[in-house]
Amino acid sequence: MIIILKPEATDEQIQHVVDRVESLGLSPHLSRGTYRTIIGVIGDEARIQVAPLRAIPGVADVVPVQPPYKLTSREAHPEASIIDVGGVKIGGGYLGMIAGPCAIESEERLDAIARSVKASGANLLRGGAFKPRTSPYAYQGMGEEGLKILRRVGDRYGLPVVTEVMDAAKVGLVEEYADMFQIGARNMQNFVLLSAVGRSSKPVLLKRGMSATVVDLLMSAEYILSEGNSQVVLCERGIKGFDSITRNLFDVAAVPAVKGLSHLPIIVDPSHATGRPDLIPPCALAGVAAGADGVHIEVHNKPEEALSDGAQALLPEQYAEIAGQIARLAELMGRRISPLAETTA
Amino acid sequence: MIIILKPEATDEQIQHVVDRVESLGLSPHLSRGTYRTIIGVIGDEARIQVAPLRAIPGVADVVPVQPPYKLTSREAHPEASIIDVGGVKIGGGYLGMIAGPCAIESEERLDAIARSVKASGANLLRGGAFKPRTSPYAYQGMGEEGLKILRRVGDRYGLPVVTEVMDAAKVGLVEEYADMFQIGARNMQNFVLLSAVGRSSKPVLLKRGMSATVVDLLMSAEYILSEGNSQVVLCERGIKGFDSITRNLFDVAAVPAVKGLSHLPIIVDPSHATGRPDLIPPCALAGVAAGADGVHIEVHNKPEEALSDGAQALLPEQYAEIAGQIARLAELMGRRISPLAETTA
Amino acid sequence: MIIILKPEATDEQIQHVVDRVESLGLSPHLSRGTYRTIIGVIGDEARIQVAPLRAIPGVADVVPVQPPYKLTSREAHPEASIIDVGGVKIGGGYLGMIAGPCAIESEERLDAIARSVKASGANLLRGGAFKPRTSPYAYQGMGEEGLKILRRVGDRYGLPVVTEVMDAAKVGLVEEYADMFQIGARNMQNFVLLSAVGRSSKPVLLKRGMSATVVDLLMSAEYILSEGNSQVVLCERGIKGFDSITRNLFDVAAVPAVKGLSHLPIIVDPSHATGRPDLIPPCALAGVAAGADGVHIEVHNKPEEALSDGAQALLPEQYAEIAGQIARLAELMGRRISPLAETTA
Amino acid sequence: MIIILKPEATDEQIQHVVDRVESLGLSPHLSRGTYRTIIGVIGDEARIQVAPLRAIPGVADVVPVQPPYKLTSREAHPEASIIDVGGVKIGGGYLGMIAGPCAIESEERLDAIARSVKASGANLLRGGAFKPRTSPYAYQGMGEEGLKILRRVGDRYGLPVVTEVMDAAKVGLVEEYADMFQIGARNMQNFVLLSAVGRSSKPVLLKRGMSATVVDLLMSAEYILSEGNSQVVLCERGIKGFDSITRNLFDVAAVPAVKGLSHLPIIVDPSHATGRPDLIPPCALAGVAAGADGVHIEVHNKPEEALSDGAQALLPEQYAEIAGQIARLAELMGRRISPLAETTA
Repeated sequence: MIIILKPEATDEQIQHVVDRVESLGLSPHLSRGTYRTIIGVIGDEARIQVAPLRAIPGVADVVPVQPPYKLTSREAHPEASIIDVGGVKIGGGYLGMIAGPCAIESEERLDAIARSVKASGANLLRGGAFKPRTSPYAYQGMGEEGLKILRRVGDRYGLPVVTEVMDAAKVGLVEEYADMFQIGARNMQNFVLLSAVGRSSKPVLLKRGMSATVVDLLMSAEYILSEGNSQVVLCERGIKGFDSITRNLFDVAAVPAVKGLSHLPIIVDPSHATGRPDLIPPCALAGVAAGADGVHIEVHNKPEEALSDGAQALLPEQYAEIAGQIARLAELMGRRISPLAETTA
Repeated sequence: MIIILKPEATDEQIQHVVDRVESLGLSPHLSRGTYRTIIGVIGDEARIQVAPLRAIPGVADVVPVQPPYKLTSREAHPEASIIDVGGVKIGGGYLGMIAGPCAIESEERLDAIARSVKASGANLLRGGAFKPRTSPYAYQGMGEEGLKILRRVGDRYGLPVVTEVMDAAKVGLVEEYADMFQIGARNMQNFVLLSAVGRSSKPVLLKRGMSATVVDLLMSAEYILSEGNSQVVLCERGIKGFDSITRNLFDVAAVPAVKGLSHLPIIVDPSHATGRPDLIPPCALAGVAAGADGVHIEVHNKPEEALSDGAQALLPEQYAEIAGQIARLAELMGRRISPLAETTA
Repeated sequence: MIIILKPEATDEQIQHVVDRVESLGLSPHLSRGTYRTIIGVIGDEARIQVAPLRAIPGVADVVPVQPPYKLTSREAHPEASIIDVGGVKIGGGYLGMIAGPCAIESEERLDAIARSVKASGANLLRGGAFKPRTSPYAYQGMGEEGLKILRRVGDRYGLPVVTEVMDAAKVGLVEEYADMFQIGARNMQNFVLLSAVGRSSKPVLLKRGMSATVVDLLMSAEYILSEGNSQVVLCERGIKGFDSITRNLFDVAAVPAVKGLSHLPIIVDPSHATGRPDLIPPCALAGVAAGADGVHIEVHNKPEEALSDGAQALLPEQYAEIAGQIARLAELMGRRISPLAETTA
Repeated sequence: MIIILKPEATDEQIQHVVDRVESLGLSPHLSRGTYRTIIGVIGDEARIQVAPLRAIPGVADVVPVQPPYKLTSREAHPEASIIDVGGVKIGGGYLGMIAGPCAIESEERLDAIARSVKASGANLLRGGAFKPRTSPYAYQGMGEEGLKILRRVGDRYGLPVVTEVMDAAKVGLVEEYADMFQIGARNMQNFVLLSAVGRSSKPVLLKRGMSATVVDLLMSAEYILSEGNSQVVLCERGIKGFDSITRNLFDVAAVPAVKGLSHLPIIVDPSHATGRPDLIPPCALAGVAAGADGVHIEVHNKPEEALSDGAQALLPEQYAEIAGQIARLAELMGRRISPLAETTA
């Protein structure tokens, strides 16, 4: 950590900072410049992060040099982590292909979608039973009944299932049915919920919040890992931007940026990132070309009847086309779509 | 609602849209232009909001003309609402002056801060017992013990108390001790939590999320009102911006923008909006000049020892100065800081 | 165009709007809803765009349905344009590979860089002679001497050359030496400069401004086309974002979004978009996978001695590696790096 | 300047950095931590700013501690500068009240507007003769004829005049007629233009660009000051934001932030910042409450006939009301609207 003093900082103020650093068990190294004095702090930075050094009179800035996330960092775990979701691998050269409708609407519809996306190469089935909707008057999901449908359909096709959990009190319920929790973008800093899934044994798909930096995302992952669950897959799904031409702003550079900082896999969700069916295929390919460990795409066989987000879903035949392109691109890059678990029967 | 067709939309597609609108019990009005066909939809727009019209082939855009929030809208309630928090009024010409430390750290410290801010003109005491922290390793708050301290200190000085609730499961507990719930920016779209405080009878301070539009904020308020609790005070606390010179970007125009759209009061929080003690006083005055119904400022008597956010707290003497300036500005504008409830004793 | 009236608009106000539209030679179609009245305007929207209809009392909003850019639009020219830069093609399946140092520093250095990037597959040489620098104290470029060097080196290797022009008064000078003008991001809305290159006969590389929407970018292109020069190549080079982990925010979705709206080619510049050598290769691949018609990358053989932006340049050997990957990706997608002009000699 | 090395930096790399710093005539101070090595650099930072230290292998980050603007900085000139525009003072307790139409449309109209705004308290008249318009098909201004009208009307009412210059080649022409140049937001980083007005003797109103940080704004001012013209007034006019409820995002905190860093005055332009007449008055007051040295407001007596930006103009009677409120607010804060120059007659 580096503490930069104000130009007008007095000797007394500088001494006070030095004393404070030493009182925390760390070693301050003073460099007096013609313009400014700086203090390099040697030792375990974590101890000092709780201390509001910026609040000390005379301090201009405090620059950390260690990442504030530990378990999540690449330094803690130099090899890429491979997350196993019901036998499907994500990371380390394996791509997860998550597909399905925004919301579970009926067993018949989910069955038809699952059948088609599996045939196209998807290896994980998604569907929302609890839906975070901006409006209290919008469709809120089928709840537990939806979870049961998801489980049955997933089992029928041998596809592990992913579904969103919105509330810490429902983690136990969702865990009964799902192979992987999804934490939505709006809950990325719902720390109570993060801690709750961190105490679970199921993998977690953690979506980046719309105003979250890459470091914020890693810090939220750290909440989950620090509770003991290291089975986390990150997801870039678009952040807030100023151009309304897309629903969100697809930050594809976050994919390699995360891979430099962390061992956790990261996938992309071009459905939410763009909100436009015509932009989903090129952005899916962009994500994979940038190194993503998987692609999350919403698919619906009758978008205009969808109870949620129909306008951004791909049709099954559109999904088949892009899934094929993803497979060929992955191959060119020396990666592959993860096979399903071998079912012993 | 207005449906804009694509230039290349076929007659068959247009007819399909017309049929779909009629099937929803609404009346389509067709205007065929040389360039585009548009369909004006007459009737209750709420019925159509759940229908994904954008997903219909041939549809280019759908433009709503009714606000999607109803109970929150100014049209539903033309007079400004005045929210009563333990006898202190916010809105309708009365300013709420919320002050206190970021986190409750000890009874002694909170007592000293409460005494000083009350003397300076604050009429509501804040303090966090459950703290949403970006890092799992940072101080997370005193929990129920903190709530008890807050209650005792508030009672001692006759100041109603405000504190954050982060989880739906804790709403009952917090309600026992607090006069007003705070929903933090990171939970502005934690819809389970919004619904839970919507079923409570205590007023709610709802902070704007960092990537939330003004309409998103009003929609989140609508969640609370739609559950029966109309005692909501909104708070502009800075949104995400690109200039790191301030912690967040203080969107002061949101204050009059909200007042045009909604009857709910809105206050400003220059502490979180700027993250810089030197910018808090000018931004507090800017907020009041723009029409804010109150000001939320973090105050600490020993910032460098604060367990959370010390670097952005004002000292008690700094608070006294800005509180006096706010009182004079409010008076110039024909408003006033709300008096405390009269205590019959 | 659609004019949406305020709920409280009076009959007199509505009639005034109708009269105004008719006075512009257009046909208003009135739809009175239970909630709002809307007026569809039929006819050439261009005539009405100059009229400030929003300023008329009773008007809530005005929604255009025609794009404000005409010559640039895909509707005006359904086929993809192919821009020829000294024999190198950009667009329509051909990729332009622009490479070179940020600034021209000496003939020797530029020669070495040109030789290496040509060997790696680059087909256009870049180098700045006039440098837009945030600081007046930073290196501002070699001026005309640099242009001469650029021309000589380009000719030596048979590479057409691209260089930035910053001022309308210098368009004639730059045109003498360059095969293609570059308009930098900071000048994207320097309308005097846009018009000046619009009157030239040389192709223009127009970079997206840091706060420009996709439509703003197309409007700036329209300035050039409307002066008679339709040889424009657009460039996505990162927009302003809130996460300082990258220098700018690479908006890869802008590539397919532009392709849907316009016939002009669009390339990507991952050097400026990310500002980080480690992120340039994955973002270059992402751009091509998303459909970009070329890639602009800064290359320097001694980055630590570069007079401008050295920290974001690739080394020649790094460029060789990514250029090879781009070629293979392009081939997979049925595209190819444009060959150089055949030199008859 | 502080150079932070990567955790894996080798001794050889560290030595190379040390050598490089010394070769620039500066003194490196090495602190080896358990986690990272940092090098504090003592001496004139300006010398090192041109050196791309980040490009050196092993370097993780470079943190400057001196501001890169010098003449503009508060440290260079601790007292607030007062800029004199034809006898009207801006800064140091004096408010400039700039008012007038977006574009000069005719002498009759400008005369009527000038008469009314002067009566309301305006002390500077604005009007555009050269208009930067997003569309090449929109009204582009009257040119020199407009400048003549502006000069005559200004003289008639004793109001100094402000008008935009868009091109370095027109600086001489505009200087003949105007008392103050305006550099528009889109040209804030048109460095050729900045240098050109920097060589003029007339004051400059420099508007903040839509994606400019506060430091970027100060760097652009530095271009002007470094050419010898220190008569610069800054202007906050809204930056790019994600919420379309306002045209731009009014960053009121930039006002006190600039005042902390620079001696130059800063005014606010709520017309462009919000684009909504209903939000202009509250945002004007917010700006003054935050410490602004003046207010720029567009006024038109017939907005629906305006040739540019009519929808965001105030009517003369609305301007009269807000100008009165600004005067009373300024008085409360110990400041005042600058009187006009005494005319000896």
